[in-house]
Amino acid sequence: MTRLARLTEQGFIDRIARLARRAGPARGGLGAVLGIGDDAAVLSPSGRLQSLLTTDLLAEGIHFRSAWAPGLLLGRKTLTASLSDIAAMGGVPCSFVLSVGFPRRTDPAYALQLASGVASQARRFGVDLVGGDTCAARSLFLNVALLGLVEPGREVRRSGARSGDGLYVTGRLGASAAGLRLLEAGERLGRTSGARAAAIRAHLDPEPRVIAGRLLGLTRLAAAMIDLSDGLALDLTRLCAASGAGAVVEQEAIPVAPQAVAVLGARAAARAALTGGEDYELLFTARAEHHGHVRRLARRMQLPLSRIGQIVARRRGIVVLTRSGRYHPIGDLGTGFRHFPADA
Amino acid sequence: MTRLARLTEQGFIDRIARLARRAGPARGGLGAVLGIGDDAAVLSPSGRLQSLLTTDLLAEGIHFRSAWAPGLLLGRKTLTASLSDIAAMGGVPCSFVLSVGFPRRTDPAYALQLASGVASQARRFGVDLVGGDTCAARSLFLNVALLGLVEPGREVRRSGARSGDGLYVTGRLGASAAGLRLLEAGERLGRTSGARAAAIRAHLDPEPRVIAGRLLGLTRLAAAMIDLSDGLALDLTRLCAASGAGAVVEQEAIPVAPQAVAVLGARAAARAALTGGEDYELLFTARAEHHGHVRRLARRMQLPLSRIGQIVARRRGIVVLTRSGRYHPIGDLGTGFRHFPADA
Repeated sequence: MTRLARLTEQGFIDRIARLARRAGPARGGLGAVLGIGDDAAVLSPSGRLQSLLTTDLLAEGIHFRSAWAPGLLLGRKTLTASLSDIAAMGGVPCSFVLSVGFPRRTDPAYALQLASGVASQARRFGVDLVGGDTCAARSLFLNVALLGLVEPGREVRRSGARSGDGLYVTGRLGASAAGLRLLEAGERLGRTSGARAAAIRAHLDPEPRVIAGRLLGLTRLAAAMIDLSDGLALDLTRLCAASGAGAVVEQEAIPVAPQAVAVLGARAAARAALTGGEDYELLFTARAEHHGHVRRLARRMQLPLSRIGQIVARRRGIVVLTRSGRYHPIGDLGTGFRHFPADA
Repeated sequence: MTRLARLTEQGFIDRIARLARRAGPARGGLGAVLGIGDDAAVLSPSGRLQSLLTTDLLAEGIHFRSAWAPGLLLGRKTLTASLSDIAAMGGVPCSFVLSVGFPRRTDPAYALQLASGVASQARRFGVDLVGGDTCAARSLFLNVALLGLVEPGREVRRSGARSGDGLYVTGRLGASAAGLRLLEAGERLGRTSGARAAAIRAHLDPEPRVIAGRLLGLTRLAAAMIDLSDGLALDLTRLCAASGAGAVVEQEAIPVAPQAVAVLGARAAARAALTGGEDYELLFTARAEHHGHVRRLARRMQLPLSRIGQIVARRRGIVVLTRSGRYHPIGDLGTGFRHFPADA
């Protein structure tokens, strides 16, 4: 029996590192010269590469409920937002540090599942856990700080969009919001199946588009990029603000996830695809003349890259062209994903 | 009136970055090509330098009580543990990301003071806030992940001590533990003065030995180094374990902080110097033939570097030679600093 008291000390971080290492060294470029166990990790020189650094917090009652999320999936999702951030910059994720606040009531079995989940996601994306900190807390929270690498000048910023660019998204949207709706209504993974289970899984275990982001950066196809953590409407607004641009989105062209349609119906699913959060797909722009290249890349990656509209002059605002042929300011469609109310 | 609702969003992180930037760009080597506002920060290539990465969590009820800690000092201390970690590796601290969990009841004025404190410490040590995340939480917590740089092979590990090395500490020990004792007994900064106020200040606003750590690394005087976050007894045990060595500490030679003596009396102060935590001084070893160099460095830095004993063979254990000429295993003196009981 592993007692939580031991787990909540350095043991928890060590356990994840051990689990992750079992499958061999990380593939990332920033090799750990010295990992866990000293005052700081030492990472090998990155030469002429730039470092990328991002941090993301997952807190019980704000970003998840542990009653909804199996420990394994929560552990995987702990890394997802940061992996998605590095992907959205066109970089390679390399090394991370993890901080965890554990309530004393945490079930040790849940903590072990959590450790396995973090380790499996780390292995899968070739990132190396090089340090961490843990403490007791009133409610569970996890924080990741992830380092990545990218060639100088190759980072894909939010600010690179120009009028005339095509606007694209990876994958399909709205499943995560549909899954959240089901969880809020009391459905649970393991007690449902088919499209409903798939939607819940899309919420609890979204797929960060690490390879797609990297290829869109390396090929220089993406002129501007952001990941969809807070919903298309809100994240597109951020991309446009950074680029000093406007956008026209054709609602018909938005790739709505079939699970969202099955769960919510066509109308609400279309809305979820526009304003639902946590799909962790990538939103990017590409120069009009690169449209053919984007289509070829999609075929090579076997991942939909849907052209959903285009970048226009800032003064035209950010609008959605509906199926009925009317233009709506995207702000009228809600401000994107809202975290469910905190108990805090 | 700044509302906390706004502060707890990106505004809090932005505010710190703005406050910190007011005094000009950070001095650290890892210049931010792109700071806050994109999916990840982009840091300029570090050439042949190694990166150092560390993370530290500060949680209400575990590491601090906000009723005891003015926001400004808590903000400063938020960076201290990580700065001290980079110092203990002999590195230069450069860039950090900050995550904050705010209870909804947080006084906005307190949050602003907190922001100022983080910013002032960042400016003072030339580190750059390049990203962050915030959310609502049941109790206040802050997490820093700090990146530093160090020349390849020049990092000072815990494992570098050899039998015969002199054992040294920077500064004086025990004041932080004395200050914690006063806070627990109900004394507060601003309602006390003299040595008592100085002890409380040592606890709430300890000084990370960034310059000393860097010089001890650069000059190659330190063979092994660790920072004293959990008390001399426990942190020396860690250094010895990593080095596969034992140590003899002469209790008489331990530099006890005069504030600790004034608050606790000589006997308890000597004990606090051995087992009290959060002094954030550096513990290091140097080859016997370098003793003169260490003394000269101390004079140049105007910082005491006290020789408190020496490294011996592992089989001799880790012992304290008391004033009465007896040897005590250091483990008998308590397991170092214990966080005060969590409310969690």
